[in-house]
Amino acid sequence: MTTQELVQQIYKKKSFLCIGLDVDLTKIPKHLLDKEDPIFEFNKAIIDATHHLAVGYKPNIAFYEAYGVKGWKSLEKTIQYININYPELFTIADAKRGDIGNTSTMYAKAFFEDLAFDSITIAPYMGKDSVEPFLAFKNKHTILLALTSNQGAFDFQTKNVEGKELYKHVLEVSKSYKNAENLMYVVGATKAEYLSDIRKIIPDSFLLVPGVGAQGGNLDDVCKYGLNHQVGLLINSSRGIIYASDGLDYAEAAVKKALELQKAMEKILTSK
Amino acid sequence: MTTQELVQQIYKKKSFLCIGLDVDLTKIPKHLLDKEDPIFEFNKAIIDATHHLAVGYKPNIAFYEAYGVKGWKSLEKTIQYININYPELFTIADAKRGDIGNTSTMYAKAFFEDLAFDSITIAPYMGKDSVEPFLAFKNKHTILLALTSNQGAFDFQTKNVEGKELYKHVLEVSKSYKNAENLMYVVGATKAEYLSDIRKIIPDSFLLVPGVGAQGGNLDDVCKYGLNHQVGLLINSSRGIIYASDGLDYAEAAVKKALELQKAMEKILTSK
Repeated sequence: MTTQELVQQIYKKKSFLCIGLDVDLTKIPKHLLDKEDPIFEFNKAIIDATHHLAVGYKPNIAFYEAYGVKGWKSLEKTIQYININYPELFTIADAKRGDIGNTSTMYAKAFFEDLAFDSITIAPYMGKDSVEPFLAFKNKHTILLALTSNQGAFDFQTKNVEGKELYKHVLEVSKSYKNAENLMYVVGATKAEYLSDIRKIIPDSFLLVPGVGAQGGNLDDVCKYGLNHQVGLLINSSRGIIYASDGLDYAEAAVKKALELQKAMEKILTSK
Repeated sequence: MTTQELVQQIYKKKSFLCIGLDVDLTKIPKHLLDKEDPIFEFNKAIIDATHHLAVGYKPNIAFYEAYGVKGWKSLEKTIQYININYPELFTIADAKRGDIGNTSTMYAKAFFEDLAFDSITIAPYMGKDSVEPFLAFKNKHTILLALTSNQGAFDFQTKNVEGKELYKHVLEVSKSYKNAENLMYVVGATKAEYLSDIRKIIPDSFLLVPGVGAQGGNLDDVCKYGLNHQVGLLINSSRGIIYASDGLDYAEAAVKKALELQKAMEKILTSK
């Protein structure tokens, strides 16, 4: 998917919501556990119910790998289901990969070609030659970790590197990577005030913002500092939507939560 | 596996060789492609032929994920084969994972419990709460990326953070993590001269050293600066061993290459 197609979808749906599919068998409604593939059944119901309110879905790959071959099958079925039934949706493999060149190419093939995700999250620690193999794929997006939403972000990401924080260094250096136009960035919502500095470095890039809701981030603050000329934000919510209810009404409860966020986004987009 | 058991195996085999299983269907002998599971058949033959010369095996997870469900099955069969037939071997999931707390716990379960690897490689960028969930597993080892063997290592890892290089900062900070005794570190062999500084910070830890051979690192230099009182090194070679031949004699060719490295290691251990 091109960035332009993503932007068009955002304006059409008046939403820049991304729904995280962090599916844990201990948290989904009990009645699904009798199904052949409970994870896929859960995802399918959530996607069918909320697809008009969200522009993207983000399976968290750890939650699938934790179930081995079965989990990987659930992941394959989920991404295929989205790509066949809702091809307008932007899909994110939240994988946080990153390795030396030939290994990164293998990961890129796995997620961009075999699974046909539109994007993948990548850790920057190993530098340029660990990121560029992902950037080589046309109309695929590499979402680099910049400033994450967890407490551990302050261990290294905000440390001063030659006069500026490491995450700013990551943003600046990555702009010189080959095919840098395929980059997006992860910026945690719990640190909304950092967004104005970030926008000075990368005014045009899309930001994937986790941490609204469960992790305490505030949508208005994020938008105040983070919106750009083409919206430029994807706000992710996972647990707050998909686990809104653990009863038979889980899909309806998810719609209710997603609708609250979509309405708030519509208001922000309209007033802008 | 405890560190003590790993050390005992090193002295018994007079080897601290780890063999990387980066299995690429385009590089393995053509006659294997007719088999039901070519990757597993390849790994099985390599392991059967070389297990007396190596103390560890390191499947590079990207190379399995690249083949989807089939690849994941090959990975499961490979780790099960090692654990059943050669339980003395130290196994490393070269996965370079790292995410927020609950997600890291899912990855830890996937690799430590379901697949029963002894260890996993982890990226440090997200900090303490992304690493500690792995450290909570007893007699399992978390191998943190410190200084990698690729060119991109100089993008961020060697940058000056408050008076010292970022990778030294990672080494020092990680020592204060809960259950830090379960940490090992990745240090690339292409930067052997850095090892004496590294040993000042982490004198007792095991180091996983990739990059001997294909990536240009030198065994003698690595040992000169990196050996400690309990050896403390695992030297990894992947392509140099497993792709020594692409003919019917691939296993024998792998033995020859592994034996060269084991003999060099034996000489170093004996002269020490």
